[in-house]
Amino acid sequence: MTTERLTKLSSWLEEKEIDVAFLTSSENVFYLSGFLSDPHERLLGIGVFPDAEPFLICPGMEKEDAKKTGWPYEIIGYDDTVNPWEMVRTAILSRSANVHKTAVEKEHLNVERYEQLQKMLPNSTYVSVEERLRELRLVKDSHEVEKLREACALADYAIEVGVHEIKEGKTEMEILAAIEYALKKKGVLEMSFSTMVLTGKNAASPHGTPGNTRIQKGDFVLFDLGVVVDGYCSDITRTVAYHDISSEQEKIYQTVLNAQLEALKTVRPGVACSTVDLAARNVISDAGYGEFFPHRLGHGLGISVHEYPSITEKNSLVLKEGNVFTIEPGIYVPELAGVRIEDDLIVTSTGCEILTKYPKELQIIK
Amino acid sequence: MTTERLTKLSSWLEEKEIDVAFLTSSENVFYLSGFLSDPHERLLGIGVFPDAEPFLICPGMEKEDAKKTGWPYEIIGYDDTVNPWEMVRTAILSRSANVHKTAVEKEHLNVERYEQLQKMLPNSTYVSVEERLRELRLVKDSHEVEKLREACALADYAIEVGVHEIKEGKTEMEILAAIEYALKKKGVLEMSFSTMVLTGKNAASPHGTPGNTRIQKGDFVLFDLGVVVDGYCSDITRTVAYHDISSEQEKIYQTVLNAQLEALKTVRPGVACSTVDLAARNVISDAGYGEFFPHRLGHGLGISVHEYPSITEKNSLVLKEGNVFTIEPGIYVPELAGVRIEDDLIVTSTGCEILTKYPKELQIIK
Repeated sequence: MTTERLTKLSSWLEEKEIDVAFLTSSENVFYLSGFLSDPHERLLGIGVFPDAEPFLICPGMEKEDAKKTGWPYEIIGYDDTVNPWEMVRTAILSRSANVHKTAVEKEHLNVERYEQLQKMLPNSTYVSVEERLRELRLVKDSHEVEKLREACALADYAIEVGVHEIKEGKTEMEILAAIEYALKKKGVLEMSFSTMVLTGKNAASPHGTPGNTRIQKGDFVLFDLGVVVDGYCSDITRTVAYHDISSEQEKIYQTVLNAQLEALKTVRPGVACSTVDLAARNVISDAGYGEFFPHRLGHGLGISVHEYPSITEKNSLVLKEGNVFTIEPGIYVPELAGVRIEDDLIVTSTGCEILTKYPKELQIIK
Repeated sequence: MTTERLTKLSSWLEEKEIDVAFLTSSENVFYLSGFLSDPHERLLGIGVFPDAEPFLICPGMEKEDAKKTGWPYEIIGYDDTVNPWEMVRTAILSRSANVHKTAVEKEHLNVERYEQLQKMLPNSTYVSVEERLRELRLVKDSHEVEKLREACALADYAIEVGVHEIKEGKTEMEILAAIEYALKKKGVLEMSFSTMVLTGKNAASPHGTPGNTRIQKGDFVLFDLGVVVDGYCSDITRTVAYHDISSEQEKIYQTVLNAQLEALKTVRPGVACSTVDLAARNVISDAGYGEFFPHRLGHGLGISVHEYPSITEKNSLVLKEGNVFTIEPGIYVPELAGVRIEDDLIVTSTGCEILTKYPKELQIIK
């Protein structure tokens, strides 16, 4: 799997006459090597060449873990008291004596490291490797889809647990705790992001923070959460009602649901991301809530919880089979209600398959 | 609080003849504004000037939340379809017409954003603002210490819960789930990092991953975790024995404990970080385990779980009153045992105060 990815990257380097690509984000290192690691402020990187063997550099104490992933090439471990950039220079120059063009992750590499690299390879120009990595990562392979399916199934389960926990007077945090406890008991090590359980007025912000707000009759309860399975992220949002809600709240719910369904109908290979966004956005605008839908319709999903493609009204990128992303319209009317419905899907040859399966018709819990 | 910090930064800019500092990390934006936000791939930033009012720029949907923190200056919100860098340029040039020298976070700003900023301010040179922010953040004020105390008390509680959960045959993940459930019920929204519960051979790596390993008699159980309270992180490690352990395991435990206590004794204003590291390192080397202690002794702690000062054998930085950091020696003998003991402490005028209070004498659970 990773060998094929490395080969594709090497071909691209050759085609673009790039001497070396040095990748430094945990996500791309994982994508190219299978080694999943968060080195915090320490350097982690992979050097890839047009026609020499790649190398991996990591903190010394992670070298054994890196070996276990089956990476068959050189692994350089360094300890906290040395300058790892000297080792990067040696590794690169031993494979490519004259480096004139280097590809880096410009959206990840920080300026300080960039300056270190420039010092090590003073005769090089620098280009971005991200476009190529994005292209590769945009189309998920069968192994990735399998992991995403597992992550989505666990997200469905998390919503089921959360909905089951709803009771008058319970706080958002109490419900959140029960959800994550249930997931951990199933072996989940990491959520895709901080789980959100929001109710009442607190749900009327697109990015509220859960706290001690208690569930009351006539309120919505909004869940937004995701699960990481072997490095792959899911992301689901469901909103349910606790006891009877007003006709205005119901109208908001149905508008969001219709917007979501209309957007889903448009998804297939050859369609632009903007078409998908606008399908939902028009439903919401037509119902008079346009100003209360302040964010893009969705985002790609995979090793990162936010990756390409970005589903905005201006993105002309055309969908391909194997793309995985979210569709998550929302309406947030201050003091009144916040509703968002989010699914994860994969583009198929004829349309799309929705990976998150929890029901989304208006559910009234009593 | 934040006003004082902004004033100190403005004075530094004036002294260094820097026209503007543009800070973009969540941590430093929080430190300077009180606004705690994770904008993912979106731009969040603060512009600070020698003698003009600062501004904050954030995703439009977070503008209301930013206002609520009490930031009294301009807040610029942008939506997903515009280029926020144009707005940054306008905001900067309206406050400082000729920008010749700009300070940025070189260890945080990525190359792509750096190039954007260079396009907006083409006549500027760029210097790092991090040195100054580090100096400011190195010495914690009373508000910060209060939050760190709360975070450490919750970390102690988490260890207490974890130790209480130990039972033969339980998996690492089951214990981990119980710990985080108990914390969430107390309102904890976020851990400082992925909680670790490791046992047996799995604990013999300095950065193992919890899984389905079951607790067996004669094993150590290692807990490494931290809690975030209002943006401030704690970080504690404790290792306890389940039933009787071998004399070799006990020797390892006592060596780590002695190393930790020796290092603690050296801490006071005026002492170099290297002195603290070496006090522990020498105890471990003298006992013959030098090669099994592959990491630095500790790291600073505050808004980030890893910040300055770095406690290594080569860091000549001299400690000051108000510095907060960890002391966490460890010995990891493959196939045999992993032991680490970690406390968080604050440097006082005469020594140090340990903020994590959970006992650390060898505890044998039966």
